[in-house]
Amino acid sequence: MRATAFSGRRVLVTGGLGFLGSTLARRLAGEGAVVTVADCLLPDGGGNRFNLDGFEDRVDVRLADLRDADTMARLVAGREFLFDLAARTSHAGSIEDPIADLESNARGHLTLLEACRRHNRDVRIVFTSTRQVYGRARSLPVDEDHPLHPLDVNGIHKLTAERYHAVYGPLHGLRSCVLRLTNTYGPRMRIRDGRQNFLGEWIRRLVDGRPLEVWGGSQRRDVTFVDDAVEALILAVDDAACGQVFNVGGPEAFTLREIAESAVACNGGGSYEIRPMPADRTGIDLGDIVVDSTRLRSRLGWQPRVPLAEGLSRSLDFYRRHRDRYA
Amino acid sequence: MRATAFSGRRVLVTGGLGFLGSTLARRLAGEGAVVTVADCLLPDGGGNRFNLDGFEDRVDVRLADLRDADTMARLVAGREFLFDLAARTSHAGSIEDPIADLESNARGHLTLLEACRRHNRDVRIVFTSTRQVYGRARSLPVDEDHPLHPLDVNGIHKLTAERYHAVYGPLHGLRSCVLRLTNTYGPRMRIRDGRQNFLGEWIRRLVDGRPLEVWGGSQRRDVTFVDDAVEALILAVDDAACGQVFNVGGPEAFTLREIAESAVACNGGGSYEIRPMPADRTGIDLGDIVVDSTRLRSRLGWQPRVPLAEGLSRSLDFYRRHRDRYA
Repeated sequence: MRATAFSGRRVLVTGGLGFLGSTLARRLAGEGAVVTVADCLLPDGGGNRFNLDGFEDRVDVRLADLRDADTMARLVAGREFLFDLAARTSHAGSIEDPIADLESNARGHLTLLEACRRHNRDVRIVFTSTRQVYGRARSLPVDEDHPLHPLDVNGIHKLTAERYHAVYGPLHGLRSCVLRLTNTYGPRMRIRDGRQNFLGEWIRRLVDGRPLEVWGGSQRRDVTFVDDAVEALILAVDDAACGQVFNVGGPEAFTLREIAESAVACNGGGSYEIRPMPADRTGIDLGDIVVDSTRLRSRLGWQPRVPLAEGLSRSLDFYRRHRDRYA
Repeated sequence: MRATAFSGRRVLVTGGLGFLGSTLARRLAGEGAVVTVADCLLPDGGGNRFNLDGFEDRVDVRLADLRDADTMARLVAGREFLFDLAARTSHAGSIEDPIADLESNARGHLTLLEACRRHNRDVRIVFTSTRQVYGRARSLPVDEDHPLHPLDVNGIHKLTAERYHAVYGPLHGLRSCVLRLTNTYGPRMRIRDGRQNFLGEWIRRLVDGRPLEVWGGSQRRDVTFVDDAVEALILAVDDAACGQVFNVGGPEAFTLREIAESAVACNGGGSYEIRPMPADRTGIDLGDIVVDSTRLRSRLGWQPRVPLAEGLSRSLDFYRRHRDRYA
C-alpha cells in the first residue's frame, strides 16, 4: 500500500527530539530522507537530544518554537512532507496551566499551518492527535465517527488543532490528515514521570527495581508500540487527504492490570501495586477505551506487528541500557 | 419560568459595549442590577460607546482585554452573574488573521474562566456561541445534537470556547451554559460593514438610499431580534447547568431574498440587487440553516416575540436617527 520512497526527499518533523518524532526521524533518515527536526525541548516534554543518538550527522536539529512565524516560514519552505508531532501531552498539566497548553497545542499548529499556507501549499502534512478527543466511550471500539467530547483542556486543544487541518484543506488547498493515537510506548519515551504515558513511569520503576503503581486496574486500553505508530505515520503521508482522520490503535485491548502483569513478566521480576485512582484524575480518566482502526487498516493497509510482550521487552531492554539518559 | 430578579445584583458583561452586550446591559441596568461592562473596543468589532447612550451613570464601563488575567481577576471577584459575550464575529476576518481570532475567541475566554476558577467559583456564567459551529446542516432544523463541523477558524474557536465551559464544570465546579445564536439583528449592531451580520450592512444601505446587495438569495436563515436574544440570555442565567447548550433561533425561516424584500418594504422604499456569492465566501457559506430551539423553549420557556417586519422597522428607525454614530 505504500507509495512514497523517502530517499532524497525533504522532510520536516516537529517535536522531532521527542519520543514519536525521533523514532520517525531515525527511520526516515535511515531510508535516505533529508530530515530536519524542529523541537523546543519543553522542560516537561518528551524532547531529549539522546533520542537522536547515532543520527547526529544525518538529522538536522533546529531548536525552534512553532509559534515563531518567521522561523516556521523558513522551516516549511521547500519541504515535501511535514510530520507535525510537537505537543504538550499531559492532561493533568493542561488543567494546571491551560494557557500553556493553548499556546503549544493550538497556537503553535495554527502558526505552522499559516506558514504552509503562505510559503508552501504543496507540502503534505500529517498531524498527530489523540483518542482523548472522544472523551468517554459510548460503545467500544470507538471509530472515527464517535462523538467528540474531550474531558480536559489538552483534549480540547488537540481537537482544535485537528479542525485547523480540516478547514485549511478546503480554504487554502493544504493537504493534511490526522492520526488519533492511543497509548503509544517504546524506546525513547519519557520515563521520568507519567506526563507522556503511564507506561513510561511503569518501565522506569521496573528498571529501578521498584513496584509499579496501577491506578484502578480494570480499565481496558489498547497500546501501540512506537514502530507500529511510525508505520502509520508513513502510510498516512501517502494519502494526505484534506482533514481525513484515522484512528491508530487496537484491535487488542488489555486491562491495566494485565499490562502490569505482562511488564513484570517481561522484566523477569518485579511487582505492582493496585492503588485507587487519585482524586484529581477521576474527572479526566477515560475508563475503558479501545479504538477501531478499521479505516487505517482497510484504506492504508496498516497492520500492527509488535505484540505487547515483545514491545515491553524491547522497551525494558532499551532503558536498562540507557536509563541514565532518561530518568 | 424566570426566577432571577436582578435588582441590586452584581453583573459583569464582557463585550458590553457591543451590540448584544450593550442591549443586555441596558436591560439589566433598567431592572436595577449593578452592571459592569468590560470591552476592549476592537477596531473591527461591534463595540461603540454610543451603545450605552443614556446609561452612562448606571453602567460602569471598563476598557479591558479578556486576556489580561490580573484585570479579569479583579473584574470577576464578587459578581453573581457573568455574561461572556466578547467576541470577534467575522468569519472572513478569522481566515485573514487566524491568530487574532484565536486570541480573542479562545485565549480570552480561557483566561476569564481561569479567573473565575481562582477567584469566584460561585458566579453563574452564560457564554454566547454561534450556530456556525454546526457547519453545513445535514438536515433542517438543526438541533443541539447535530454534528459539529465548523467551516472556518472563527467557528473552530467558538467551539473551542464552548468546550472550555463544558469541562470547567466537571473539573472546577463552575456553572455555565452556552447559547448558540443565529443571525441576531436590531438597534446597536455594527452597520459599517458586514463583519458582524449581513443585516447591518443592508440596513445602512437602505438608510443611505442605496440598493442593498444580496449574495445568492435563496439561502434560508432564521433571524432573531436582539430583544429576544437578550431574553434568552436572561432565562439561561437562571439555569446555568455545567456546559448545557441551547440553540437560540427559529422557528421561522426566510430566504435572504425574502428578508431583503421585507427590509425594503419596511423602509418604505429602496431596492436590492442579487449578486453571485463572492469566491472567497463560497467555501464558508452555510447554505440553508435554521436551528431548532425546542430545548430553550421547553426547558426555559423562551418565546421570541418580535416578528421580522417589526424588528426591521425598529432597526431602520434607530439608524435613521443615529446613523452618524455607527456608519
